[in-house]
This record gives sequence, structure tokens and C-alpha cells, in this order.
Amino acid sequence: MINKLVSKIQKTGAPIVVGLDPMMKFVPEHIQKKAFAEFGETLEGAAEAIWQYNKEIVDHIYDIVPAVKPQIAMYEQFGIPGLIAFKKTVDYCKEKDLVVIGDIKRGDIGSTSEAYAVGHLGKVKVGSNSYYGFDEDFATVNPYLGSDGINPFIKVCKEENKGLFILVKTSNPSSGEFQDRVLQDANKPLYEVVGEQVAKWGEEHMGDSYSYIGAVVGATYPEMGKVLRKVMPKSYILVPGYGAQGGKGADLVHFFNEDGLGAIVNSSRGIIAAYQQEQYAKFGAENFAEASRAAVEDMRADIAGALANR
Amino acid sequence: MINKLVSKIQKTGAPIVVGLDPMMKFVPEHIQKKAFAEFGETLEGAAEAIWQYNKEIVDHIYDIVPAVKPQIAMYEQFGIPGLIAFKKTVDYCKEKDLVVIGDIKRGDIGSTSEAYAVGHLGKVKVGSNSYYGFDEDFATVNPYLGSDGINPFIKVCKEENKGLFILVKTSNPSSGEFQDRVLQDANKPLYEVVGEQVAKWGEEHMGDSYSYIGAVVGATYPEMGKVLRKVMPKSYILVPGYGAQGGKGADLVHFFNEDGLGAIVNSSRGIIAAYQQEQYAKFGAENFAEASRAAVEDMRADIAGALANR
Repeated sequence: MINKLVSKIQKTGAPIVVGLDPMMKFVPEHIQKKAFAEFGETLEGAAEAIWQYNKEIVDHIYDIVPAVKPQIAMYEQFGIPGLIAFKKTVDYCKEKDLVVIGDIKRGDIGSTSEAYAVGHLGKVKVGSNSYYGFDEDFATVNPYLGSDGINPFIKVCKEENKGLFILVKTSNPSSGEFQDRVLQDANKPLYEVVGEQVAKWGEEHMGDSYSYIGAVVGATYPEMGKVLRKVMPKSYILVPGYGAQGGKGADLVHFFNEDGLGAIVNSSRGIIAAYQQEQYAKFGAENFAEASRAAVEDMRADIAGALANR
Repeated sequence: MINKLVSKIQKTGAPIVVGLDPMMKFVPEHIQKKAFAEFGETLEGAAEAIWQYNKEIVDHIYDIVPAVKPQIAMYEQFGIPGLIAFKKTVDYCKEKDLVVIGDIKRGDIGSTSEAYAVGHLGKVKVGSNSYYGFDEDFATVNPYLGSDGINPFIKVCKEENKGLFILVKTSNPSSGEFQDRVLQDANKPLYEVVGEQVAKWGEEHMGDSYSYIGAVVGATYPEMGKVLRKVMPKSYILVPGYGAQGGKGADLVHFFNEDGLGAIVNSSRGIIAAYQQEQYAKFGAENFAEASRAAVEDMRADIAGALANR
């Protein structure tokens, strides 16, 4: 799957992943109205609204980006109906040949991580049959529990030709509280030690040119991205925090390798709610998905420009 | 909710939480057969089997334990039907007046943690209505992202009278890889620094005698439990790792305060799959839930004995 991701990034020229994180305040009123007319102001109504919203965005961007990243929390908040919308979104994006990164940030003790891995990336056995539960292509995972929380995910990735992005340095303001603390024995911050471990897992689990064990490093910490790029030369870096969280194209250059590869940058509300920004207001709420397409094109140009000028 | 938990622990004399972590290999054949006859060997069939299995166990233990802890991964592996079984289990346990600890180990950046908090502990707004998604009483959360990943959960707990157990030192063999590393500035291991932060959150969010911000510390690390008990005097400690993972009653005493309170010990397969152990084989698979009740009673005696002898 990492080979497919790399090849799609090369083909589109867009090291971009669209975060499908539908908050109700992003969903245009005409879509909400229609969904509520059919299902009422219920969880089912909300789920229908976010699904229709996602679908229209995907229809307008699937040919110019390699991947999408639905954040499962935004669906989980609507309970079971929300998770049905998550699953529909995953399936629809795969039909459109997009690589789907499930932003699930799971992680637990061994037997439990195995269940998550099976549910999100693999197949679960039921009697003599087996079934895919959610069937994303990649998943994000949390390293706090150490190797035996990660290994079951790696095992399923190997069997199913899928991949991981492990949290190393997250994009949020307080990520440093624990991640930046210097470890006495290593004389390095925790995020770097986690990065070294990701690099080790990565080297052991290679695709053609990159590993299918990648890392999450926030665009909001470009200097740390520079260090981590060198620590994990073969790992793809998923870079959240561009746009709404404050990251800019120029901040991103150090996340890429000399080959122009090695990073994929996420933008969520900057793309899916582009029509709500002054810059794209001319599209109007009716044409929100065209605004999203324009925002993708501008983001591609921003990154390409920054890479050309480095 | 912490007051209710403490009062139920006192009333039952059982500082015990039953982990409702139904793997298919635990579910007696007669239950599997019946579910598969109705729904086929499908995800729906598996979900029906684990729901019926849970229900019978809950019917046999609800009057002698204060709380249950369904591990959502074990449901999530069966996709949407599995999560419907999770929700049915949560609702049924609440009907039986059990405190429900959702073992979800979520944690993300602020806006995303907010969505998880709303989905699992609070209410989500849809138009002019609001709905509970999963509606557990407590949730487990992961601290790797720092305060702004935790604060949205605390906010919802405050509004909804619910609570958290934050991962501090997990029960798995490799938990030390990152959690035990000594931080240079603090000259203490990471788990202790996380524990100090939990204590701080705890003091600011008190129930009558204990805080509704608790911690997870594994029974498999009794010496660290002893230290952490002192670091977080007002936080309830959720202690996994008893039984199948190797923890024994004698290992648990230091997790409790002098008042005999302050800890609640989880056992999952040791109780729910008791009938598969030699000690309880006499019950037979048909009476698996009676075996579970006997295992709870033995566990209660084991802990009480250890506390009496300390």
C-alpha cells in the first residue's frame, strides 16, 4: 500500500491528504436541511448530512489527490449512525481508488491492539468465514504502550499489505508536555527516541523505496521535523497541522527528502470547509465542493513552490 | 459518578471491575450455535453471540460487583454490528445500575478529543436536539498528546458528572519502553511525571472523597503502584493485569490507601471465561455465568485476604 501511496503522490504531484473531519458547522445548510427533512434532527440525520457532504467533496477531489484521512472521532461522536457514515465514507473513497488513512490513534496491550488491527486493517474470523470490519488502508497508532502495542498492527499490515503512521510528535500546542522531555539515558527528547524506534520498525518493513511503517509529525514543529526526517529516512511522514492549525508551505520543506518524497501533508478544514473562508467565499455554499477543489490546487502550488525554493 | 463508584465498592465489598472483553473463543458453543443459526456466520451473528454472552454474565454478577469495563476493541473488531453490541452492553449494564467504564483509550488534539468526549461521555448537538452517542460513565484516555488532549474530556466529565482513568503505567510487558524512561529535568520516570499531572488534575476535580480523574496502573508492576499510590493520593487507580496477565492479590495491596479504598481491580478473562479454567470446569459450558459469579467471589476473597494481611 505504501507503494501505491508513493506512486499516486508522484502521479498527482500532490503530497496531500484531505482530512475528512466533518463537523456539523462545516456542512452547508442546504445539505443539513435535506438530511433533516428525511431523517429528522437525529443522529441518523446528522450521519446522512456528513455522508452527503463527504461524498460531494470526494467527487470533486478524487482525481487530484492521492489520499484521504477520515478522523474517526468526528463520526464516533454521532454514535452508531456516525460510524456507519464513517464506513460508507471509507468504502466510497476506496471505490474512487483513493488511499484511505484511518485516523484512529488506537493503541493498547497486545491482545487488544490485535483486535483493533483486525477491525481496522485486517479480517476477523467468524466461524469458518472472515470479514473486514472497517478496512482502511493505513491507520494512525499511539506508541505510549511500547512495542507490544504496535507489533500486532505491524503483523496485520504485513499480511494485508497495509500500513501505519505512528504518533511521534503531534501538532497540538501541548504536545511537548511529555513528548519533548529529554530522556536521561538517551540524552534526547522522547519524540526523537520514539522516532528512532519507528525508523527501526520501518527498516524491517519496507515497500519498494519507503517503509509501510510511517510517522506522524506536526507541521507546527518544523525544526523537530527537520531532525526527525533524518532520524527516519525510510519512513513516510504524515504531517498534520497545515492551514487551520498554523503550518505553512515554507514550514514543510524539511519534512521531505531530497527526492521530493517522504512526506504527505494533511489539511482538513482548510479544504473541506474552504467555502467558509474569505478567499473562497465567491464559490458560495452551494458550490462548496468546488471551493474544496480550488483549495487543494492552491495547497499543491504552495507546497510545490516551497520545495522549488529550498 | 466517582461517588457512586466508591459507594458501590463499599456496599459490595468488592473493589472489582469485570472486563467485558468477549473474544469468540470465550463464548460457549451453545451460544455461538444459536446466534449463527439465526444470523449465519456473519458479523451480525458474532455480535449477537457476544451480546447474549455478555448479558448472561451481567445477569449473574450485577449484584456483587460495582462496575464493568467493556473493552471497545473487542467489539470494534466486528465492525458496525460489533459496535451495536457494545452499545447494547453499555445500556444493559446501566439498566442494572452498574458503573460502566468504557475502555476506549482515546486521545487526540483538542478539537478531536472533544469529539471523542462528546461521543462517549457527553451529548452531541444535532440541530436543536442533543443525543448521547455511547454514554459510558467513565472512559480510559491516553496522555501522550498532553493537556490539550485531556482537557476536553475533563470538561465533559464536569458537565455530565462522569470520570476518567488516564493511562499512567500500563500492565503490558513492554510498557517500560517509553513509560519507564527517566526524564532529565524531573529525574523521575515518565510514568511518575504523568502520575503527578494526573494528581494535579485530580485535586482540581474532586468528588466527595476521591477525584473523578483517576489513573490506570497495571497490577503487574506492584512496586511502581506503591510509588504512584503516594503520588496520586486522591485519584482512584484502575488496576488491570490481575489474573490472566499474572497479577495476584498480594501484588495489589499497595494500590489501596489506608482507608481500604482508592483502587478498583479489573479481571477480564479470569471472570468471563472462568468456566474454561480447571478450577471452575465443574460448572460446565452451559453454566458459564455461574462460573463467572464464583470467580468474582474468589477474587473478592483474594483481595480482602491480602488487604487484611497487609
